[in-house]
Amino acid sequence: MRVIIPFPSPDIEQQIKQIDASITVDVLGPYDPVPDNFHADVLLAIGVDRTDQLSQLLAEPNNIRWIHVFGTGVDSFPMDEVGDRLLTCSRGAHALPIAEWVMAMVLAYEKRLPQSWINQVPENWHSAELGQVSGKTLGLLGFGCIGSLVAERALAFGMKVKALTRNAHSDWPKGIEPVSSFEQLVNETDHLVLAAPATAATHHIINAASLAQCKQGIHIVNVARGSLIDQDALKAALDSGQVSRASLDVVDPEPLPEGHWLFSHEGVSLSPHISWSAPHMLEKLAEPFVNNVRAFLNDAPMHGVVDMKEGY
Amino acid sequence: MRVIIPFPSPDIEQQIKQIDASITVDVLGPYDPVPDNFHADVLLAIGVDRTDQLSQLLAEPNNIRWIHVFGTGVDSFPMDEVGDRLLTCSRGAHALPIAEWVMAMVLAYEKRLPQSWINQVPENWHSAELGQVSGKTLGLLGFGCIGSLVAERALAFGMKVKALTRNAHSDWPKGIEPVSSFEQLVNETDHLVLAAPATAATHHIINAASLAQCKQGIHIVNVARGSLIDQDALKAALDSGQVSRASLDVVDPEPLPEGHWLFSHEGVSLSPHISWSAPHMLEKLAEPFVNNVRAFLNDAPMHGVVDMKEGY
Repeated sequence: MRVIIPFPSPDIEQQIKQIDASITVDVLGPYDPVPDNFHADVLLAIGVDRTDQLSQLLAEPNNIRWIHVFGTGVDSFPMDEVGDRLLTCSRGAHALPIAEWVMAMVLAYEKRLPQSWINQVPENWHSAELGQVSGKTLGLLGFGCIGSLVAERALAFGMKVKALTRNAHSDWPKGIEPVSSFEQLVNETDHLVLAAPATAATHHIINAASLAQCKQGIHIVNVARGSLIDQDALKAALDSGQVSRASLDVVDPEPLPEGHWLFSHEGVSLSPHISWSAPHMLEKLAEPFVNNVRAFLNDAPMHGVVDMKEGY
Repeated sequence: MRVIIPFPSPDIEQQIKQIDASITVDVLGPYDPVPDNFHADVLLAIGVDRTDQLSQLLAEPNNIRWIHVFGTGVDSFPMDEVGDRLLTCSRGAHALPIAEWVMAMVLAYEKRLPQSWINQVPENWHSAELGQVSGKTLGLLGFGCIGSLVAERALAFGMKVKALTRNAHSDWPKGIEPVSSFEQLVNETDHLVLAAPATAATHHIINAASLAQCKQGIHIVNVARGSLIDQDALKAALDSGQVSRASLDVVDPEPLPEGHWLFSHEGVSLSPHISWSAPHMLEKLAEPFVNNVRAFLNDAPMHGVVDMKEGY
């Protein structure tokens, strides 16, 4: 078997070799041309979405049978170039740090961070009007790896947790209230967490009409993709007070252009798509791929298979 | 029975009257003189610590039999004026918001808040070196109401939780590792939470020698009292990197004088003793007192009885 990795990663190479020393691993630099008569069975796609290099690799008809995307979302991967190849991703590998980030945003909102921290003598000592997490309602749009980890933590804080998902879950974890419409998800929700894939169905799911269904003063946390939110509608809802805060780790576009209103709006807590960050993340992302190499060799079920029709 | 409250609170008056309409409630303004031949059985002490008014109320030998302090800590209450009266406090009423605050500080530390939030184009999008809460060790100095609520939440985040307390617990909650020395508490701990009462035994328990026993780069969260920390020793440990951050909601003295180093040190997250703050806190503080009035009338066991020897 031959694996091509358009990204030098001695650690991943070594792990693959440990599975079976006869596996050939070819490494391409990010700007290297694809060699003529190139052959590989497997492509590990790291940071090559929509590059000419990727298009060249996928254009060869009888080569790659399986592509693994080194991340969770495949929304920016050129699905039309996949053909009938198997597409997998490291789904779930980022879920733990992202779930922690979501709870950090919920706590920061209720405890009024960073405003609660002082660097000079305040008007009053002992005086603040902080919120309480316990008793609040958290609404989850999407209940995949991220959603379930957020739910566990929110329940430990005494929050009420609602979830809306396209997939029918028969075994909802204890304490979570599944709902069947967006309105039911948001009409009594204090913290709305967007943790669903970017698809045609979720494009601008947060828009003027759906924002009007929300409990007044809702806090929205987006750790999914910027495309889920109609940002003009969000701005109007922030300005009117319908939304009290938007904690956005993802925006549209990324990076945001200089001077964009999201940088300076007082109702926005903005971060540059970093909620996934945690120590040893490269190893954590590699693990599902390495396990899949083993499964691929043994014709065993593979992890993180992308449903090409659903797009995630 | 007569109750005196040196603080106008129609809500508390009403709640006491509802227990027994024959209870007399006298209200004194904070600067009102104590009337001659004054009589009361019960004193609800709100914000009167070390005032002349309190001393006058307690000087009368045959009056007040029971004092309830409207807070959690009694370290600033003049214990030498209590005599053989019963002293109780609203212990635990603040514990829930304080436990949430502690977790907010832990998450803010690991997710590098507020630095992770941007208000202009960052050097890199998608790039950060954030920490992870899961797998970290949280050490609790003290395991009262606050400590146990922090532990529940920390365990849900996949933290390892150690606790050191003076009281022998025979029934430690599942997942918590009790330790028997300060060194065992801190030598592998990432987040040290001070949640013990201010007593002679805990005065400057964080000092140069004990800081040297800590895991390098420890994060210290103080929601107890400023007196637990020798602030000069803390400054040296912050400057050397032995302590990477101190999230201090309590300091010595309070309020801090203008220009104090704690306002401006980059390793300090300072807040003005507000971790207790939550909606409807007056009602939550009143509840243990009102329940105690009922118990007092019925000679039933009372809540939050202060051990005059231990001082908490």
